[in-house]
Amino acid sequence: MSNPLNFEVNATEGAARAALLTTRRGVIETPVFMPVGTAGTVKGIRFEELESPELDARIILSNTYHLWLRPGIETIKACGGLHNFIGWNRAMLTDSGGFQVWSLGALRKITEAGTEFRSHIDGSLCFLSPEISMEVQAALNAEIAMAFDECAPGEATHDEARQSMELTLRWARRSKDAHVAQIANLRYRQALFGIIQGASHLDLRRESLDRTVAIDFDGYAIGGLSVGEEKGVMMEVIEDLAPRMPADKPRYLMGVGTPEDLIEAVARGVDMFDCVLPTRNGRNGQAFTSRGKLNIKNARYALDQQPLDENCACSVCNRHTRAFIRHLYQSGEMLASILLTHHNLAFFLDTMKGVRQAIRSDQFAKFRREFTEQMHCGLES
Amino acid sequence: MSNPLNFEVNATEGAARAALLTTRRGVIETPVFMPVGTAGTVKGIRFEELESPELDARIILSNTYHLWLRPGIETIKACGGLHNFIGWNRAMLTDSGGFQVWSLGALRKITEAGTEFRSHIDGSLCFLSPEISMEVQAALNAEIAMAFDECAPGEATHDEARQSMELTLRWARRSKDAHVAQIANLRYRQALFGIIQGASHLDLRRESLDRTVAIDFDGYAIGGLSVGEEKGVMMEVIEDLAPRMPADKPRYLMGVGTPEDLIEAVARGVDMFDCVLPTRNGRNGQAFTSRGKLNIKNARYALDQQPLDENCACSVCNRHTRAFIRHLYQSGEMLASILLTHHNLAFFLDTMKGVRQAIRSDQFAKFRREFTEQMHCGLES
Repeated sequence: MSNPLNFEVNATEGAARAALLTTRRGVIETPVFMPVGTAGTVKGIRFEELESPELDARIILSNTYHLWLRPGIETIKACGGLHNFIGWNRAMLTDSGGFQVWSLGALRKITEAGTEFRSHIDGSLCFLSPEISMEVQAALNAEIAMAFDECAPGEATHDEARQSMELTLRWARRSKDAHVAQIANLRYRQALFGIIQGASHLDLRRESLDRTVAIDFDGYAIGGLSVGEEKGVMMEVIEDLAPRMPADKPRYLMGVGTPEDLIEAVARGVDMFDCVLPTRNGRNGQAFTSRGKLNIKNARYALDQQPLDENCACSVCNRHTRAFIRHLYQSGEMLASILLTHHNLAFFLDTMKGVRQAIRSDQFAKFRREFTEQMHCGLES
Repeated sequence: MSNPLNFEVNATEGAARAALLTTRRGVIETPVFMPVGTAGTVKGIRFEELESPELDARIILSNTYHLWLRPGIETIKACGGLHNFIGWNRAMLTDSGGFQVWSLGALRKITEAGTEFRSHIDGSLCFLSPEISMEVQAALNAEIAMAFDECAPGEATHDEARQSMELTLRWARRSKDAHVAQIANLRYRQALFGIIQGASHLDLRRESLDRTVAIDFDGYAIGGLSVGEEKGVMMEVIEDLAPRMPADKPRYLMGVGTPEDLIEAVARGVDMFDCVLPTRNGRNGQAFTSRGKLNIKNARYALDQQPLDENCACSVCNRHTRAFIRHLYQSGEMLASILLTHHNLAFFLDTMKGVRQAIRSDQFAKFRREFTEQMHCGLES
């Protein structure tokens, strides 16, 4: 079975790197932002827009937990796998469900075997384990699957974080074994990424990294950040960890973050990101712009004839004013969410395009400085 | 001041006619369906899609009542009129608000002067009259404005319908006078359409028509249909009335209807239509297809790999299956509304394109028969 991914770093500047990640469904230039398509749809946007040259999203993320509960894996299998079911022909990554069930809090119970939880849809009792997650992800058949992990809260003590990390390592082993057992049944081998845990404790993070790499995955993710830890701790962990991660494999920072977070993590050596911020905040009336966040609800925009971001070339900024988008938002019109989502995704994807170009032309330090300075001009300060 | 509209009939078949309606914002081929953009947005779809060759909507409708209440006319004036405010550069028609305030039922009180009502947004007391409606519509500055009318319920008695009709005629006179008084202040003269009322009573309808025509408008609309009258009565009124309407002016049937209704009204001589059905029903999970309505909630579609309509060439039918759209709907995903709205509008607009081509090639009778037969195959029967 051939290697499911080819990862080739072709430029570096400091710890930052630009690479080509080749999958059977296209080439992904990294650093890359993956829009989140939880239930098989990136909320509020059509696939045609995601594929358009303006956005050109090469890979999206889907959530195993959500799709497993609804429509259910039998439906997706009967419809020929996730790509075919949803009509998306580019690359996809599925998370494992580990983080989602962990997020259910009081609704879930974690044991050695796996996680028992109540469905957020109908309250029914469900059980997810490394083996089940791998089976579901194989059926979804995304290009990249993730190991089933447990997350520790940001403020976890050393003892708590170690216990959680050890469990994640045992689950990583079981995920890998289940994945290997499945390979024989698949026409194409999926890539499988391992997930590094350890909360805010650098010694645990390093140990988690070494022992995860020892299991041998196609790429490595940093999990359990941006989950309540103190500000600054996240970057400290990334700065310590990323350069120690295998240089010949993609490095994926899960669930992060703002445009500034992305750029700071790229500067520390991260290649891949996903986050609900552009889509979720868009639906809540927030635009990301080159001069910081903009809350369209704000009365100051009632007569504002400017686009969301004067430096943005997206189709929303080309056509519509803040005044109109505010009116749509205040009127509860779906188009407010559609336009804000589109602009925010364009802003995130365009920022990453700028990042890649900067690294390739050895201008990333300058790009990072200017981006950060402009961000702090503060539209609404 | 030049004529704001040019209307040129260039093909007829029986009472059906195909024409070109030329406005300062483009040529509209009739018979035409106008998507409804109540609050300055056709719900759930971007203007780029409406303008695409696939849909090619040449004119949309906006509601004076909604825009007057929110964002308010001062905002729209400050933003350079409605086209500029919303970013739509093709033709528009605004209704007068008459029907909307009438629809408020117990919340409104109709007097000779106008209609007093409570805002559906904040309950504040408002007053709309022919003069105010004309002033607001002049500020909105659509290509076509409508006279301020009163609607009688479908089951109105002869006496009730006469009273309502007489009031509408007095308001039509006042609308025209206000419009004429405004012309001096406008760079371009808007077209103004009169509205024929009279409920289900043919004698009143004919009288309303004659007396409305005597006031002299740029086009004539049939109002007060599809508001509770018995099935069959609507077509009876249209059949009697449409051929008596001036042949050299556009004939507009307000707020109607299903694709079958449109074709039957075209067969009786109607040129223009608007209706919320494709957008509203789309949001509620209903698709219009060449074989009748399809309710995507229906469990029979859970594994259905077919497009919404096998005879539809729209981008939704080209890409997505019923199974996926049903999944989106069941999951409460916005994309369900977006895709169903797009398909439904494509279906309505494409049907009207077929109607125009059929009339121009003297094939409308055949088109109408085949369309109707196929519709009654009944996807869900």
